[in-house]
Amino acid sequence: MTTRLGVGNQRSKAVLKVRVKMLDAARSWLGGQGFVEVQGPILLPAAGERPHNFHVNYFGQSAYLSGGLQPYSDVFVEMFEKVYTVAPTFRVEPSKTKRHLTEFWRVEIAASGFNLEQMLRVQEEMVAYVCHELFKDAGEELCFLRGSTENLNRVKVPFPRITYDEAVERLQRTKCRIHWGEPLNWENEQRLSLMFDRPFFVTDFPVSGETYFHKSNPVKPELSLCADLLAPEGYGEISSAGETITDKKELLKKLKETQIEPADRRWYLSLKRFSYAPKSGFALGVERFLQWICKLENVKETTSFPRTYERIYP
Amino acid sequence: MTTRLGVGNQRSKAVLKVRVKMLDAARSWLGGQGFVEVQGPILLPAAGERPHNFHVNYFGQSAYLSGGLQPYSDVFVEMFEKVYTVAPTFRVEPSKTKRHLTEFWRVEIAASGFNLEQMLRVQEEMVAYVCHELFKDAGEELCFLRGSTENLNRVKVPFPRITYDEAVERLQRTKCRIHWGEPLNWENEQRLSLMFDRPFFVTDFPVSGETYFHKSNPVKPELSLCADLLAPEGYGEISSAGETITDKKELLKKLKETQIEPADRRWYLSLKRFSYAPKSGFALGVERFLQWICKLENVKETTSFPRTYERIYP
Repeated sequence: MTTRLGVGNQRSKAVLKVRVKMLDAARSWLGGQGFVEVQGPILLPAAGERPHNFHVNYFGQSAYLSGGLQPYSDVFVEMFEKVYTVAPTFRVEPSKTKRHLTEFWRVEIAASGFNLEQMLRVQEEMVAYVCHELFKDAGEELCFLRGSTENLNRVKVPFPRITYDEAVERLQRTKCRIHWGEPLNWENEQRLSLMFDRPFFVTDFPVSGETYFHKSNPVKPELSLCADLLAPEGYGEISSAGETITDKKELLKKLKETQIEPADRRWYLSLKRFSYAPKSGFALGVERFLQWICKLENVKETTSFPRTYERIYP
Repeated sequence: MTTRLGVGNQRSKAVLKVRVKMLDAARSWLGGQGFVEVQGPILLPAAGERPHNFHVNYFGQSAYLSGGLQPYSDVFVEMFEKVYTVAPTFRVEPSKTKRHLTEFWRVEIAASGFNLEQMLRVQEEMVAYVCHELFKDAGEELCFLRGSTENLNRVKVPFPRITYDEAVERLQRTKCRIHWGEPLNWENEQRLSLMFDRPFFVTDFPVSGETYFHKSNPVKPELSLCADLLAPEGYGEISSAGETITDKKELLKKLKETQIEPADRRWYLSLKRFSYAPKSGFALGVERFLQWICKLENVKETTSFPRTYERIYP
């Protein structure tokens, strides 16, 4: 076979090898914990607003591309209680940063009977396991890509945690202009991320329209039961978790509070299974995780055929 | 957790369990044989004709949804020689049969250094392994769904083979109207499939525009180096295999013969890596395989959120 691996391709090959080992390790941990792998749909019906989803011409009708398993996970946890998927996800994201792809893969987990606290423990255990497996099995590739694997060896549970309030205070102390209630944009995530040497959670975000399906904190209803996992060394968010609303009245109330017309979330309401047990989940971005693990300048380097706002070639 | 599994959902759950075990078995066999799991792109650029692909609005530009890894597999086999993917695939298919989904998952394999004969052996070994694993591990679900697992126990390598010529003769003997050169449509596949009690190959199809990337038979250039795997009991095609052209002149000649403008396959030509080694692959349709394994009337029953020509809900 003719080969034409230059230095660029040697790097691509090393990253792809780490990618393979990362997904193997995640599957192995999840399978060992009794999570069942499922596949949700990619083509979604047009039933209400979908501002972040790509539009597809479906035999002359409107359809959209999936933004994740979450709306569909109730149906799967009703069958298996603990499920996950490894699947492509799409987002209309007109950003030219080094962190955004329009097509990316996620390891997405959902489980019935788990509150947010329990789900954060699942998440840190899984991430720590994957990091330790890569430390053991991908040393050659990672030393070639980032010079050392010390960052992986430091990963230990429990992960450090700060609240959104603490994050805002820390950022304001660095003379950064951020007001309580604003989302953490990419620059702010990066600043925070440089303050840590291992993955850490940011918890207790303010309620927002984007996460209308998350429960509110029962004591401080202006906060959501959700958390982001940030990679250290300036890499920022790699995963987000939340406890979803399982009561119909509560969901309709939350839609009203976040100024969403229930008709605009018809697709979500039609799939929703209400129950007495709590339900939580998280979604880990494969490419963003790899960007940190492999210490890559641009997330595009984590995948062979990156799709960005600027480019969809080849 | 509240549960509302009726009889319908008990069936769905059994099918999903078989699906999980099927994909586990396929991954386990492929991993054991040194195949590396990769992920190709789902969003494709508009560079030439894509009559069977769904159109996506990509920031005001044209893009399409993937019809399989094949056009991208050269890039991956250049790095790893033996690769596979488990990924969603899309096809504009305005058919109302019990065999067609517009969104389905495939286990798709590609390898450098393998001619068609070698690839058919990989394929039958993998399918037989998966069948035997399901016989051992999914007996409960399969007995519930189809009454017995005897069909799986009969699967042995090598699989029976007939040529396309023999298939046409057999069909003509049943008074079926088919002329040499026509594709085997669904009704004809079904008739043939009823003549077998285990999976079988149909080989040596006539050259057609749909498989312009396959090599022609060096002795009989009117035939392609490709083969379909058909399930027995009336289920029909579950997988197709082929040896791809690895020489540029040969590819341009084939495009001419099949009356395709090279400009209409710009996307394919831009990805093509030419080499001296042969290259072959196959793609197994997860849902069609499951339809046979679970003995289901309609392929829609193999997946939780089927997408068909008629319906994309919920």
